[in-house]
Amino acid sequence: MLIALLTDFGYKDSFVGTVKGVIKSINPSVDIIDITHGISSFNILEGALALKASYKYFPKYTIFTVVVDPGVGSERKAVVVKTKNYIFIAPDNGVLSLALQEENIEKIVEIENQEFLLKSDNNTFHGRDIFAPVAAYISRGVDISLFGRQINKINEINLPKVIKKNGEIIGQILMFDKFGNAITNLENLPQKMKRAWVRDIPIKKVANNFQEGDRQFPSLIKGSFGLYEIFLKEDSAKDKLNLNVGDPIRIQI
Amino acid sequence: MLIALLTDFGYKDSFVGTVKGVIKSINPSVDIIDITHGISSFNILEGALALKASYKYFPKYTIFTVVVDPGVGSERKAVVVKTKNYIFIAPDNGVLSLALQEENIEKIVEIENQEFLLKSDNNTFHGRDIFAPVAAYISRGVDISLFGRQINKINEINLPKVIKKNGEIIGQILMFDKFGNAITNLENLPQKMKRAWVRDIPIKKVANNFQEGDRQFPSLIKGSFGLYEIFLKEDSAKDKLNLNVGDPIRIQI
Amino acid sequence: MLIALLTDFGYKDSFVGTVKGVIKSINPSVDIIDITHGISSFNILEGALALKASYKYFPKYTIFTVVVDPGVGSERKAVVVKTKNYIFIAPDNGVLSLALQEENIEKIVEIENQEFLLKSDNNTFHGRDIFAPVAAYISRGVDISLFGRQINKINEINLPKVIKKNGEIIGQILMFDKFGNAITNLENLPQKMKRAWVRDIPIKKVANNFQEGDRQFPSLIKGSFGLYEIFLKEDSAKDKLNLNVGDPIRIQI
Repeated sequence: MLIALLTDFGYKDSFVGTVKGVIKSINPSVDIIDITHGISSFNILEGALALKASYKYFPKYTIFTVVVDPGVGSERKAVVVKTKNYIFIAPDNGVLSLALQEENIEKIVEIENQEFLLKSDNNTFHGRDIFAPVAAYISRGVDISLFGRQINKINEINLPKVIKKNGEIIGQILMFDKFGNAITNLENLPQKMKRAWVRDIPIKKVANNFQEGDRQFPSLIKGSFGLYEIFLKEDSAKDKLNLNVGDPIRIQI
Repeated sequence: MLIALLTDFGYKDSFVGTVKGVIKSINPSVDIIDITHGISSFNILEGALALKASYKYFPKYTIFTVVVDPGVGSERKAVVVKTKNYIFIAPDNGVLSLALQEENIEKIVEIENQEFLLKSDNNTFHGRDIFAPVAAYISRGVDISLFGRQINKINEINLPKVIKKNGEIIGQILMFDKFGNAITNLENLPQKMKRAWVRDIPIKKVANNFQEGDRQFPSLIKGSFGLYEIFLKEDSAKDKLNLNVGDPIRIQI
Repeated sequence: MLIALLTDFGYKDSFVGTVKGVIKSINPSVDIIDITHGISSFNILEGALALKASYKYFPKYTIFTVVVDPGVGSERKAVVVKTKNYIFIAPDNGVLSLALQEENIEKIVEIENQEFLLKSDNNTFHGRDIFAPVAAYISRGVDISLFGRQINKINEINLPKVIKKNGEIIGQILMFDKFGNAITNLENLPQKMKRAWVRDIPIKKVANNFQEGDRQFPSLIKGSFGLYEIFLKEDSAKDKLNLNVGDPIRIQI
């Protein structure tokens, strides 16, 4: 069995190691893969995008443990979601919802049964106390219905909508990747484009690969998130063009 | 067998990969878990706190390999410490001492036997040349007494003391976690508190979870290090309040 | 079998996790080790140095998958290189060449056979679509000649040359490690040195270990890259001396 971890725990502290220690204490033979722990702190949308971009590349029955959890310790639910091919474990804050839009959900369970959880005198680390042990027990074959009662739906987030008006398509920057490429909410581009801008900066072209881009002016490319990205050739569009999350991209059609 | 790594080697270079290559060359079937490699360079206290916060969550007989080692290549000792449940390998600079205060030490050995170590024409990477092979041989069942002579004690570091005077309890900030929470040296708070400040900034409350905090003014919470943390709700206390290691926290009782 | 990954994908996104998901989907039992994913974006020289410094410490028959690939999706080749002890997979841009200078190459194959690759509607992530599946199939025993036709040589990069003139040896800074040490292109120092400078800053000494260094003035030490490094004792030479890649180091002989 394979447990895949995706969190905003970062790489500075022992948080990720502790989660793995808990898992290995319960199931020593399970395989653990890090998707990433570099999600921006508290950023549910980034976590949801990273999960959506990656989960389909994992083997069937992978147990995804997704902890971007600003509400840790509060009343938000913790859930296990079973789909045809996968198991997802996460706080019920929408971080699973972009991936689950593509999956057939078979069952959702709210994690309530304290028997499977770690006791603690602090209330700040449910990755350790709730999500890790639940993932580990699932990897050992524990039926998910034992964790709590079945519920009907989970919370959702949605990408900001693309707007069409006055002969323009208007999208926006959702996040940046490690290379400084700006991931937008544009899944498709119109067949015929006249001109395009990010903020007030003209976009040079739609490229088929990064080498076709320009070093000074931004270009667009369909990227590995399944979304169009704004990039500079071998440079950081974020830093060099001083882009920010939320900046508009306008396309004249 | 499980080897857990905790270092200040960072994620930029091939240092961690090299350590793992050495281990796998000696014991291909051993399981290696990263606790973290993000300890601030040379920061023994941070390493000791990260180890203390995490080691108990690992399976019995885990071999902890802890390399925060500003004295690499100098006269400082390298040691193996066996407790009832675990093995710890580290430079003898105090990085193990906070964890070991909670453990019953059974045996300490100074690593001297060159037979188990890698030869090298440089003297800057004992993670590769000393700590990795020793961990790997232990995981293969080599008795720790073969690495060198038994010694009686290791060097210790201690957390800065909490001070009580003039009706005040005075602690300080030890370090920051990835979220910008400030970890203090306060393990317990007095039953009755009047007011509290970090530096000259009033502390709003003691919260039970991060959602109960405030976005502008700092709150306190018992965190996963077993210590009280100063935090802002869904924001970085470090950045937004401009906090620094060593800043005092004062509590009127 | 062991697959070792070395990339500039960073730790922010799901890129590395996706690569591992692809590998595990093809070969669930293969062992995956991260050398590092922290290579500076697009920096082929850094990647080549990190590979050279680490690969020899891995077990025989390790499959190194090295993706520092500014030319992804363009006409650059993707190659598999078999040496006596190892397999290397990478874009053909020189990132393997420093390691391969030390190895006897037995066979080079250009990756062309689409049968082994992932289909995708984007052209920006060959780590996922090409390098990961090829590594996984090799780990399952697929003969490398099945990936494409044999070729005779790969592209090379070389370290900047050390210059001798006017009684001086002149090297330069190639990169910085996590600790802020400046890795130079000097493999050897002359037996007799008079004085030395990095830029215009006098170098204090050649040290045998970091503790022998000075906290204010830079010293030299033979480091784990097999190259001389400029360092400060327990501090970042890069930050404190404001050093940059390309800065000259001059040695009077």
